[in-house]
Amino acid sequence: MRATLIYGAGDVRVEDVPDPKLIEPTDAIVRVTHACICGSDLWPYGSKEQTEHGDRIGHEFIGIVEETGSDVPGLTKGDLVVAPFVWADNTCDFCREGLQTSCRHGGSWARNGVDGGQGEAVRVPLASGTLVKLPVSQDAAIMPSLLTLSDVFSTGHHCAVTAGVSARTSVTVIGDGAVGLSAVLAARRLGAERIILMGRHKARTDLSREFGATDVVAERGEEGIEKVRELTGGDGTHAVLECVGLRPAIETAFGVVRNGGTVSRVGAPQYPDVPADFGVFLRNITLTGGVAPARAYIEELLPDVLDGRIEPGKVFDRTVDLDGVPDGYRAMAGRDALKVMITP
Amino acid sequence: MRATLIYGAGDVRVEDVPDPKLIEPTDAIVRVTHACICGSDLWPYGSKEQTEHGDRIGHEFIGIVEETGSDVPGLTKGDLVVAPFVWADNTCDFCREGLQTSCRHGGSWARNGVDGGQGEAVRVPLASGTLVKLPVSQDAAIMPSLLTLSDVFSTGHHCAVTAGVSARTSVTVIGDGAVGLSAVLAARRLGAERIILMGRHKARTDLSREFGATDVVAERGEEGIEKVRELTGGDGTHAVLECVGLRPAIETAFGVVRNGGTVSRVGAPQYPDVPADFGVFLRNITLTGGVAPARAYIEELLPDVLDGRIEPGKVFDRTVDLDGVPDGYRAMAGRDALKVMITP
Repeated sequence: MRATLIYGAGDVRVEDVPDPKLIEPTDAIVRVTHACICGSDLWPYGSKEQTEHGDRIGHEFIGIVEETGSDVPGLTKGDLVVAPFVWADNTCDFCREGLQTSCRHGGSWARNGVDGGQGEAVRVPLASGTLVKLPVSQDAAIMPSLLTLSDVFSTGHHCAVTAGVSARTSVTVIGDGAVGLSAVLAARRLGAERIILMGRHKARTDLSREFGATDVVAERGEEGIEKVRELTGGDGTHAVLECVGLRPAIETAFGVVRNGGTVSRVGAPQYPDVPADFGVFLRNITLTGGVAPARAYIEELLPDVLDGRIEPGKVFDRTVDLDGVPDGYRAMAGRDALKVMITP
Repeated sequence: MRATLIYGAGDVRVEDVPDPKLIEPTDAIVRVTHACICGSDLWPYGSKEQTEHGDRIGHEFIGIVEETGSDVPGLTKGDLVVAPFVWADNTCDFCREGLQTSCRHGGSWARNGVDGGQGEAVRVPLASGTLVKLPVSQDAAIMPSLLTLSDVFSTGHHCAVTAGVSARTSVTVIGDGAVGLSAVLAARRLGAERIILMGRHKARTDLSREFGATDVVAERGEEGIEKVRELTGGDGTHAVLECVGLRPAIETAFGVVRNGGTVSRVGAPQYPDVPADFGVFLRNITLTGGVAPARAYIEELLPDVLDGRIEPGKVFDRTVDLDGVPDGYRAMAGRDALKVMITP
């Protein structure tokens, strides 16, 4: 089959790779119908050291079950399924607590002989635990929205949930990328009435307003902090959803959070530590968030997507086939595209 | 009257100061019957630059209302009261949310013309909001335990509450000082069944066992982390209560917390930042805590103290009169005393 490999910074190629085969009785083979490129894929795309062999990549996909091992209860050939962005048994203590990203038997896509999502097919380990069946036909118009459950919308939701967002909390979202916009939508879905988006790309901030943002702050750094404080009577907001992962973003987060409030971060951190000095201590700021256990949220979010109450798939503004994946990376890295869907 | 002043590191004196007088209609004058020295008083005692004038000090006290302004509803001359370690109106939005440490009109003892607690009397601003009446006579044997509501036990409780301690959470407490021991007692009171204390002073760890610690780990650093992990099947504990405030302690906290768990810190941080790299992110660790809004907790904790169900006052192992305060500081700084009570 054909799949995407990353050889180094800026060097993504689509090549022939071995067809996936069942190895464990708990495996399933899934033919990928929809995949996408993640903001986190842009970190290696920006900085990976060149390699001889290339590494598989991609961790978000929807597909059709093609074959199952002897121990894959609940799944049959022909089922349409969505895969969360890590695979997990969904039965260990961490999984039962909703932390499938720490599953005792799980792991990451595109590592250690497991396929990546940006290809024609994937061997899915622990398939019964990992995959969630989708009760729709695969040509449905909501497919992009369903695909966001794999990672980006679930990540925005994780950010809002861990930040304690509710009808009683004001919210700042930092970052107008696909995760930031998803966080806006998730915060609105959880009842937040005041949602300030910090971002400056008009097409994106327009979509944020559609998703529920009540205010947009284009300024950054100290100026941006001051603007959010102005908008909130000097206090900042109860919840701050940090959806970037760079130091200026997390520093801004501490600047715009209200005393007693919570900063949640879902942007993969490109910094080693966060401010936590006596000033932060006096203000009783909580720092939470982390890699999102998408599997924990899919069943909860699915009905709202199926009913069309939310349309998180609007973050996709470009679709490519497998051959178009390298162009898709270029477009996302160059900010020409917000988020790129792949239909292999 | 006489009160304690700190002139610099190691230089605490008891001197004559002006008698407190009502200034605002919301003030009360309280004659102090019991006060104490806080672990946080030891930071300036260890490092304060020498000054000419000396600064007032002390923020924990019980006393008798001697005089009230014209706007102090609910309090009368003769009432026995406990003061939380900041003063607050207890009516603003932050106070109503239980964050009296961020009160819009409140402030700290021993600052800006407000008396400190380590003296004969105190002018209490916003007295109706600040003070809590104690329904006992002032010679009761539980006075030391009631005094801990002012700060040390409320601080341990804040640490346990913000860490989400319950019957379902395993707990590590870092630090065998009075706050650490209070955190053990608070965690036990909230239902925790497994409580590991990291500490090495026998008299203190003995008291921790009486308070509810099930395991004591004397090792520090990597060795201590390994020991806690051994005791918890390799996982660490759901909640970690960091009651020291030094960098090695907060680093240990991140080492012994279970994936998805919470580190709460109530030791005044003597470090500018905390580890928050990609590894921490992948583990979904929450960092919370801060300066404890004791006022928010006193009514809740009071019945358990009055009924003798808990005896947080056992952290006091020495009592001095006002003249003995300098000796009390020396004893606490030298670790000869765990916590020193003052009966002016």
